[in-house]
Amino acid sequence: EIIAAIERMMQDPAVSRPLVGKRVVVTSGPTREAIDPVRYLSNNSSGKQGHAIAKAAAEAGAEVVLVTGPVNLPDPVGVTVVHVESARDMLTAVEQALPATIAIFAAAVADWRVADVAGAKLKKGPAGPPSLAFVENPDILATVAKHPSKRPQLVVGFAAETEAVIDNARAKLARKGSDLIVANDVGVATGTFGGDANTVHIVSADGVETWARQSKDDVARALIALVAKRL
Amino acid sequence: EIIAAIERMMQDPAVSRPLVGKRVVVTSGPTREAIDPVRYLSNNSSGKQGHAIAKAAAEAGAEVVLVTGPVNLPDPVGVTVVHVESARDMLTAVEQALPATIAIFAAAVADWRVADVAGAKLKKGPAGPPSLAFVENPDILATVAKHPSKRPQLVVGFAAETEAVIDNARAKLARKGSDLIVANDVGVATGTFGGDANTVHIVSADGVETWARQSKDDVARALIALVAKRL
Repeated sequence: EIIAAIERMMQDPAVSRPLVGKRVVVTSGPTREAIDPVRYLSNNSSGKQGHAIAKAAAEAGAEVVLVTGPVNLPDPVGVTVVHVESARDMLTAVEQALPATIAIFAAAVADWRVADVAGAKLKKGPAGPPSLAFVENPDILATVAKHPSKRPQLVVGFAAETEAVIDNARAKLARKGSDLIVANDVGVATGTFGGDANTVHIVSADGVETWARQSKDDVARALIALVAKRL
Repeated sequence: EIIAAIERMMQDPAVSRPLVGKRVVVTSGPTREAIDPVRYLSNNSSGKQGHAIAKAAAEAGAEVVLVTGPVNLPDPVGVTVVHVESARDMLTAVEQALPATIAIFAAAVADWRVADVAGAKLKKGPAGPPSLAFVENPDILATVAKHPSKRPQLVVGFAAETEAVIDNARAKLARKGSDLIVANDVGVATGTFGGDANTVHIVSADGVETWARQSKDDVARALIALVAKRL
């Protein structure tokens, strides 16, 4: 009797595949910002968490578009993958992937890019090191969360911090207009960037929930289950 | 008769394995220079050419130490591999690998690093983008080529240029004190950085030799044969 009930429940698509018919946009990995034809700025994001989220969303039945910076990971099966380099390219690809029901921005997007990208390789010379002027990159999370016509029903941002993790995430939630912020500590000692496990704090208007340290795959499945429940 | 002669020649270690008993140090890949705990400066070098050279040197019978920056390549078989991140780490590892008969510096070492690496992640704020001051990295090629006690018998540098390739390489040969410069054009349109083929110019006191475009493996074997002949 109990087994039969469980089997019925598992066969119920609302339980096992709660995102059937929904479109989900996920970003993953770092971005690369060119300095000249060979040099760039980037960060240590491996893309493991974002790719795991795209995979979990597809397993939950969603139609998934994954927009990813340069990573050393295979494209997840059953997901449409768009490969980009810079923050501006990532924003363009995300906007092209809208409308969507859910957007989850797990990429570690460069906050700044070099103001004037050199057309030829910068040379070492008697003048000493170059001085680089930076400008702010577009804010993909805020742009989509405040989109006048195509705001997804649910917008989830990530906050990669090395200090004051939860305070910074709370401030980000308000400032960016997102529904959830997934905050994690990416200090080198945590092994989060590049590693296979993650300790995350789910920050929303309801408060903060801290999840026990678990694999990035498990974080991804739990996040997709949480997001599906909030629709 | 001819086949027998060829067979004798191929079995002659001086022909088939000209570097038996020699120690060769090779560098490969980019370096990464930290900006803060998550951000860094790097470049597009894939490490394919440097790794191919280490492999070719091992096939020629040498004892090979490969010092490599972060690359997405397997460690070559039969080679001692030292993984490093920054230019300063690379120099330390190279110095520890000396003495050697031959040194081939194929890595794309960052010319500059950030003067003050931030201990915590730089935050976006009302003050606008940070201004980064740079300082020059140590020059691994010049340091080893001008080493007072451990200069290898033959020192080979690489010049990755996007313009005036040969002129820049000639100037580099003189300035750095190396015996050979392998110059290549790494402009994006050439596909050299990241690609499998390379067009190189061998610059020495004798002049400039331009090799036909060929695979990086073939460039590596030809370079090792050339170097072995010059010992």
